[in-house]
Amino acid sequence: MASMATFFVKTTFPSHSLTKSFETRFAPPSKVNVFVGVRSRIHPGLRVSSGLIEPDGGKLVELVVDHSARDLKKGEAFQLPRVKLSRIDIEWVHVLSEGWASPLRGFMRENEFLQTLHFNSLRLDDGSAVNMSVPIVLAIDDEQKQRIGDSKRVALFDSSGNPVAILNDIEIYKHPKEERIARTWGTTAPGLPYVEQTITNAGNWLIGGDLEVIEPIKYNDGLDHFRLSPSELRNEFAKRNADAVFAFQLRNPVHNGHALLMTDTRKRLLDMGYKNPILLLHPLGGYTKADDVPLEWRMKQHEKVLEDGVLDPETTVVSIFPSPMHYAGPTEVQWHAKARINAGANFYIVGRDPAGMSHPVEKRDLYDADHGKKVLSMAPGLERLNILPFRVIEERSCTFLCTYASLIQVVIVPIVCRLLHMTRLRAEWHSLTLQGLKTSSSYQAPRLFCSVQMRTLARNKESPPDGFMCPGGWKVLVDYYDSLVLSGNGTMPEAVPA
Amino acid sequence: MASMATFFVKTTFPSHSLTKSFETRFAPPSKVNVFVGVRSRIHPGLRVSSGLIEPDGGKLVELVVDHSARDLKKGEAFQLPRVKLSRIDIEWVHVLSEGWASPLRGFMRENEFLQTLHFNSLRLDDGSAVNMSVPIVLAIDDEQKQRIGDSKRVALFDSSGNPVAILNDIEIYKHPKEERIARTWGTTAPGLPYVEQTITNAGNWLIGGDLEVIEPIKYNDGLDHFRLSPSELRNEFAKRNADAVFAFQLRNPVHNGHALLMTDTRKRLLDMGYKNPILLLHPLGGYTKADDVPLEWRMKQHEKVLEDGVLDPETTVVSIFPSPMHYAGPTEVQWHAKARINAGANFYIVGRDPAGMSHPVEKRDLYDADHGKKVLSMAPGLERLNILPFRVIEERSCTFLCTYASLIQVVIVPIVCRLLHMTRLRAEWHSLTLQGLKTSSSYQAPRLFCSVQMRTLARNKESPPDGFMCPGGWKVLVDYYDSLVLSGNGTMPEAVPA
Repeated sequence: MASMATFFVKTTFPSHSLTKSFETRFAPPSKVNVFVGVRSRIHPGLRVSSGLIEPDGGKLVELVVDHSARDLKKGEAFQLPRVKLSRIDIEWVHVLSEGWASPLRGFMRENEFLQTLHFNSLRLDDGSAVNMSVPIVLAIDDEQKQRIGDSKRVALFDSSGNPVAILNDIEIYKHPKEERIARTWGTTAPGLPYVEQTITNAGNWLIGGDLEVIEPIKYNDGLDHFRLSPSELRNEFAKRNADAVFAFQLRNPVHNGHALLMTDTRKRLLDMGYKNPILLLHPLGGYTKADDVPLEWRMKQHEKVLEDGVLDPETTVVSIFPSPMHYAGPTEVQWHAKARINAGANFYIVGRDPAGMSHPVEKRDLYDADHGKKVLSMAPGLERLNILPFRVIEERSCTFLCTYASLIQVVIVPIVCRLLHMTRLRAEWHSLTLQGLKTSSSYQAPRLFCSVQMRTLARNKESPPDGFMCPGGWKVLVDYYDSLVLSGNGTMPEAVPA
Repeated sequence: MASMATFFVKTTFPSHSLTKSFETRFAPPSKVNVFVGVRSRIHPGLRVSSGLIEPDGGKLVELVVDHSARDLKKGEAFQLPRVKLSRIDIEWVHVLSEGWASPLRGFMRENEFLQTLHFNSLRLDDGSAVNMSVPIVLAIDDEQKQRIGDSKRVALFDSSGNPVAILNDIEIYKHPKEERIARTWGTTAPGLPYVEQTITNAGNWLIGGDLEVIEPIKYNDGLDHFRLSPSELRNEFAKRNADAVFAFQLRNPVHNGHALLMTDTRKRLLDMGYKNPILLLHPLGGYTKADDVPLEWRMKQHEKVLEDGVLDPETTVVSIFPSPMHYAGPTEVQWHAKARINAGANFYIVGRDPAGMSHPVEKRDLYDADHGKKVLSMAPGLERLNILPFRVIEERSCTFLCTYASLIQVVIVPIVCRLLHMTRLRAEWHSLTLQGLKTSSSYQAPRLFCSVQMRTLARNKESPPDGFMCPGGWKVLVDYYDSLVLSGNGTMPEAVPA
């Protein structure tokens, strides 16, 4: 059965070599977009299954114009006032074009922007609310505004001078930068990565309108075939006869704690009576800050995790979520969850301090570690989504584990697993108990380990604690930090210009 | 017919004298709370009319314990760990005790606090939302937290050592000050009045729980009889057979532009088919910043406005809204509107830049002048409330007026009004057109005039532009600024300690 997971693990990645470029290794030999090929070959005409959760607003909003209209729209674009898009702007066009932000039909006009800032949600005509917590807006400066004049349409161009989209029935309104930052991040401290990339030096105006995207957004980085649209994901889930889809958003390498969580979630869903829960392992692929592991390396690492059998390819779909990262904690986690509803997920796994980071100025985390899951569970427009907090493992099992780790690991689990012939479960318990033993007494440990020690150890080519990560995955990280050393004495790379 | 407005205009205010204290003049001779007396005398047993808009959550939450239980609760209070309340804390106890914030039953626990910060609304058990845009919270410091220990209840005491309330089933959680400020005000700039009064030096913890208020909150400032609870106001509206109640929140003296707006609104409601629309003229009575005109002077000024016939006492109820002022613009205006639903208002008049102020650091208004009414019109939980923006006058009539003011004022209005014998309307048009003439070309003018020129003119005992304010009301302001000169060379008084 062809599936994303199957593609993922069967794509012929050569063994890692620091001298080869990643793109060469990752791109399918034929340079054909694997998924598009499959989509038309394997399940032509298959659309959103009625068994999956409905998209926000009842219908996926897809904004790429018909193939037959491309030339026409391109021609029109060259006749219109132009707005040049940054890399992050294009990522948002991508997000909008595929309906991740359904029912949004383009960059926000002021009424949507204000509702997002104040209510993290949009009211629909029927009075219901859909969640929308981060502003998806396009900034222009005074000179651009003047150039647009009275035009009702503008064309959006990339930095190479190619037309990307037309924005129709536009509305230009003030860009209240300080207020946008304060209400989105809950701070105005200098040093917020997304703010510095996209807001601080942006224009004083925002331009909203309805998008017509000229052709599907591609990055030609060898990873485009992993960038499945919500519609494509829904088709995939339908094809697999999924009766539950649980999404796991991540922007870090997958360690065994994550893996246990995902397999445990599947088990819980089976216990609840679902017959075929499918995991959407969904790394974020847009802008991330300079010291996060870049997407291409994360994808290599995720591949190894599947190859090593830590996750089951048969019940896992790996795809890239095209959104840029705000690092806006409880505000942003709603966006991460809402977008996955549009992709067909009805369960969402939320960890400790989702979308969080250190305070840019003070010596503390920017957000309370528990606020993300609390806010998510109360967010308007997300009532249909089942929130699965880490807590089950983190507070109950792990405290228990950490207390009785040796006993469990050495005596009970091996006996029980051997009796039940549960090889995989045994490996998982082994992994978790080792985490408990090797680190501190709370589930913070893997996270802290991940962000601080992992870098040091991987850079020094040392091994992580036993059971922390599968060896193949760990080697990818060692290779990544090696590549940094080769390129610049181990300093973090500069962020990709926005 | 006894009515608040009647009380208001019939209360025997002696003519103003700078040598007499306001309290002496304002307090009813008998020192009996006038309204309470009336409530039990005139309409015993009359409860909320089914004709009025329902309170949020379906039922007014009133938290003052039965008279018979007072001594018991007082006794309990002395046995519990104590939290000392500031003046502003007591204003919030007042607000909560009378159900302005229904369905809140006390200071917010964390789940309510987070919903307020992120969504400006609270989700009820039935899935519906009520609006709640400003955090109503009580801060405590480390030492107080430690003193409370494991107790499930605390007693709230005023600064004189009197027990005010018991807080039950308490929850203590972190006070994320920066995040609270950023999400409530959309800025963290230093100099926000409410922030400096209540947050900057407040404790690092918040304590939420269910309130039992020992007795009704009174201030003994001669104005208590104007502080009608939502229940009392509803009774009053029912007694008057109101079929529409339109609320006007204010914290400034009433000028003729305001008055025109209010009378014009009544006319519009009559045109819509309502038979007896009642105006709730509802000055805010809690904490205000130092350079606002204090409540006692504003109440004198409002009295004169009614005495001079600018507003009709028969269709006007004047009462004091006990909330403190946040100056949080679009966030706070929702609170102002929501609280009035609980008092029975189904129409709410919103002006330019409601609850706004100048940016504390930059030379601009803190909020976009139009955001207040836009946010209000989209706010979750306020769908039942009819929002009446100033715009009708401000953009249509006033632009027109300012363009053709001379023609209208000098020729058309006098002729039409004389023909129709519409003396009051004539006076109003006269007033409005004069505003248009004397000031700039937008409705910003009266506001700018109010806050900047009014002070200078009143201080210098000069007259305002003709028709700006009734002479009696203006004299009150002159007296107020005179009193400042007498007390300290015209400098603004210090804010009342919170």
